[in-house]
Amino acid sequence: MKVYEFEGFPNPARVRVALAEKNLTDQVEFVQIDLLAGEHRAATFLEKNPSGAVPVLELEDGTTISECTAITEYLDHVSGEPTLTGRTPQERAVINMMQRRAEAGVMDAVSAYFHHATPGLGPDIEGYQNAEWGEHQRDRALAGMAYLDGVLAKRPYLAGDGFSVADITAFIGLGFADFAKIEIPQDYVHLAAWRARIAERPSIAT
Amino acid sequence: MKVYEFEGFPNPARVRVALAEKNLTDQVEFVQIDLLAGEHRAATFLEKNPSGAVPVLELEDGTTISECTAITEYLDHVSGEPTLTGRTPQERAVINMMQRRAEAGVMDAVSAYFHHATPGLGPDIEGYQNAEWGEHQRDRALAGMAYLDGVLAKRPYLAGDGFSVADITAFIGLGFADFAKIEIPQDYVHLAAWRARIAERPSIAT
Repeated sequence: MKVYEFEGFPNPARVRVALAEKNLTDQVEFVQIDLLAGEHRAATFLEKNPSGAVPVLELEDGTTISECTAITEYLDHVSGEPTLTGRTPQERAVINMMQRRAEAGVMDAVSAYFHHATPGLGPDIEGYQNAEWGEHQRDRALAGMAYLDGVLAKRPYLAGDGFSVADITAFIGLGFADFAKIEIPQDYVHLAAWRARIAERPSIAT
Repeated sequence: MKVYEFEGFPNPARVRVALAEKNLTDQVEFVQIDLLAGEHRAATFLEKNPSGAVPVLELEDGTTISECTAITEYLDHVSGEPTLTGRTPQERAVINMMQRRAEAGVMDAVSAYFHHATPGLGPDIEGYQNAEWGEHQRDRALAGMAYLDGVLAKRPYLAGDGFSVADITAFIGLGFADFAKIEIPQDYVHLAAWRARIAERPSIAT
């Protein structure tokens, strides 16, 4: 398998964690796409992902999979039991729901703030920007964090008793918030405790 | 099972189609939440879905599942083979990716246009609106349709040879575009042919 990514960026990091959780990292050849140099807009890369985003997983038969959730679905089902996306219909549904809430409420909101209300990746890379929209998304990200804090007051992981792709999305989303200089309120104590715990997982700490 | 919905609205329609495809419609008690009267903001409903959106699936044990993709995951795995979300790792990944593209590129973009660049559900229900953002999302929806048209030039359904949740999302998204008065360009002939074919499915036509 090949993974096209830009190391250190948030969405590639989601897939890096999923690969490590599934013990698949050493089966992947990583190819760097320099977003700051605009390499994601080259025709050869747009053939792999028309939206121009990283990461992209390329299978041996040439099939290309983009979207972090889709890549994680593949990795989770191709190797052993589906530990990240759920085993039973109910587990699958709750994880899917919580992943989407972490994605829409934190990851996507932080991303919209970064790309619209800050210089983002700079004038050569950012296209249309709407600063007012970006600022509004910052508020949405804080509301998303407050929601997750409330969930984590009642259970150890976002989708229940076990670590899942929902935790990956939220954890990387908080790292993106730090990078974008969105201050995470200190009174989200359950979120902070969960974050410290997740940071110690071998898939992240090493 | 109970489904809280507002009949005729786009996201509830996605779950109605999934239920019909899985022959589960008659196992569900539907409960109407009148969005125009603000019933989705009542504390009793926010307990079921903190984001206040419909549809919500309530299981016998009281578990509530929101987000259309999560509800569809549940329905698809609880009854027979997973025909809507895929059987193999690769099928699952391609369907997940195409569903997300149809959702982000059409459904969500049309929704953002409707809620931001038009009066939407009216001043009592709509909160923050950003008309410039909404107009931009209209362009994004048209780009999303152009992309889907290109995909459908090469294969009969969005994720390959079989109907999937990606087709449900895109089909309902186009209906929402009609409702929001976004004119779908007539030269998207593959999209139009696919749409006519999908409209004939028993899950939609009846």
